[in-house]
Amino acid sequence: MSVTVAIDAMGGDHGPVVTVAAAVRYARTHPDVRILLVGRREVIEKHLRATKADLGAQLEILEASEVIAMDEPPAQALRGKKDSSMRMAINLVKEGKADACVSAGNTGALMFISKFVLKTLPGIDRPAICFALPTRKGHTYVLDLGANVDCTAEHLLQFAVMGSTLACAIDGNERPSIGLLNVGEEEIKGSGVVKQAGELLRSSHLNFFGNVEGDDIYKGTTDVVVCDGFVGNVALKTSEGMAKMLGGILKEEFGRSMLAKLAGLIALPVLKRIRDRVDPNRYNGATLVGLRGVVVKSHGSADRISFECAIHGAVEDVRQDLLARINKQIELEHAQIAAAASA
Amino acid sequence: MSVTVAIDAMGGDHGPVVTVAAAVRYARTHPDVRILLVGRREVIEKHLRATKADLGAQLEILEASEVIAMDEPPAQALRGKKDSSMRMAINLVKEGKADACVSAGNTGALMFISKFVLKTLPGIDRPAICFALPTRKGHTYVLDLGANVDCTAEHLLQFAVMGSTLACAIDGNERPSIGLLNVGEEEIKGSGVVKQAGELLRSSHLNFFGNVEGDDIYKGTTDVVVCDGFVGNVALKTSEGMAKMLGGILKEEFGRSMLAKLAGLIALPVLKRIRDRVDPNRYNGATLVGLRGVVVKSHGSADRISFECAIHGAVEDVRQDLLARINKQIELEHAQIAAAASA
Repeated sequence: MSVTVAIDAMGGDHGPVVTVAAAVRYARTHPDVRILLVGRREVIEKHLRATKADLGAQLEILEASEVIAMDEPPAQALRGKKDSSMRMAINLVKEGKADACVSAGNTGALMFISKFVLKTLPGIDRPAICFALPTRKGHTYVLDLGANVDCTAEHLLQFAVMGSTLACAIDGNERPSIGLLNVGEEEIKGSGVVKQAGELLRSSHLNFFGNVEGDDIYKGTTDVVVCDGFVGNVALKTSEGMAKMLGGILKEEFGRSMLAKLAGLIALPVLKRIRDRVDPNRYNGATLVGLRGVVVKSHGSADRISFECAIHGAVEDVRQDLLARINKQIELEHAQIAAAASA
Repeated sequence: MSVTVAIDAMGGDHGPVVTVAAAVRYARTHPDVRILLVGRREVIEKHLRATKADLGAQLEILEASEVIAMDEPPAQALRGKKDSSMRMAINLVKEGKADACVSAGNTGALMFISKFVLKTLPGIDRPAICFALPTRKGHTYVLDLGANVDCTAEHLLQFAVMGSTLACAIDGNERPSIGLLNVGEEEIKGSGVVKQAGELLRSSHLNFFGNVEGDDIYKGTTDVVVCDGFVGNVALKTSEGMAKMLGGILKEEFGRSMLAKLAGLIALPVLKRIRDRVDPNRYNGATLVGLRGVVVKSHGSADRISFECAIHGAVEDVRQDLLARINKQIELEHAQIAAAASA
């Protein structure tokens, strides 16, 4: 199945340096994927020339004159920049000219514009950023990771429905367990909103495990962990920071003396396997769930390899027919909720 | 200088099994420290007998008939259990019979009762849990780590004042830099409360660096990182979870084959040094800043070694005359704020 992906070529901390290089590389290794590079034609062409790529029909440039800055207020980006590369990439999904779009740009703007252009699925107020974080046992879907910084209890319940659906659709897990991220396991713990969300979840038909704490994410205590976008974003980035610090300390200690260097050399194959298992580059690309279209958000600071992962994530979402499956699941969930409510 | 520490012997996930063993061990190695074990006499005596300790005047048991459960609502713990081990330990500080108290019990209750019994310093509404997290370069003071789950912008400003003061008092850093934990560096980012706190911090006299993200904590971007207790607690525990997962993967990979085991054996001294640098047990014990008394909170799940660290933290806080220094700094800060406001 041929898949067409629209890329916001101007988005992210590095812009076309990364996005164009990643697109070229991905297209070369995936001849059944078409990529639409959206942005300033002359800039994209310059970077394309640098890669000496000749990919014919597989790569196409679509001109978009404006660029949304990383620090631009989402509402301003939506209203003021109708010809932005991000907006156009999303429009292409809406118009059916692309199966998915990928952006490393301003998260708030991506959320806001996607919601405006594509609309949310029935019963969903806000899309959420969902990401499968690695655990000892496999992975845990965590949402929201930054799309919604101020959430109500009802939003958290909707995130739980979406996360449950995603885990079900992708992993074939019939009754994914849901954890509510909190500062303690006990029901009395947490902020007002989180306590209220706990009540909603307990009275829902979802497989609600209860409160989980930060360390439960990487333990893999539940299949899905629900939190607001502020908490999720900080938790994700703090733990990435911890992993980077540990990586740095590893390097430092194995470089400290001749003996340590020798030990490091001998342990190198093992250390490489460890790095491969936890390399954040392998985990780039989070799906904006709850929309009527596939939108994948890459880390703003993604490098080429990392951005390729995000493109691949979008292609896989399309191939797995994720959207239709989520849509169907949400309908089922809502029917169950309605049935339970009227019972 | 002889220091007397009151220990809530019944607090924590493991209670006296851990607290009594840690107290005995700490007393043995620190003959200039007196420890008051507060809780159910017969239980404490049983555990003391098990350690075969004969520490004479260095250890004393003080009877407290009630125990605050880990899931007990703080207000109920305060009003309903006036003879709890936690309350009595705090009372001993208030009465000057102990220089500091340590508890691994219910965090909310510890905060609530400490505030009620000891009162906060002038200009401070709520105490905060502050902890020096390790970074590549040294450490970063992060607060609040769980005492206050719902915060206003003014509370965050007060945390910044306390964190700045702490860094100044302990490290002799004249102008500690303050980061506001957020989902992006840009001023427009964040929840309503955090944006407002950013405004307050920008117009304060503090050395405000601006917004920082989760990964800046372990990078050591700023000397102090300020956040509400919900976010701080989740960020801390999530990154601890990441560290534990990495430790587990390390063990797994170095045990995978004979060759890997051999490599692990050769790399063992280096791996041990790495573990020592990041062992969370070395970092247990967070100060409740903003109170008119030294109260140290241990991890609820602390083991003996870890709880000893918390005791040591309390002793060091007393020896460093932390309270008086913080108090003085806060007075200075407030005088500066007042002067700036009237200028």
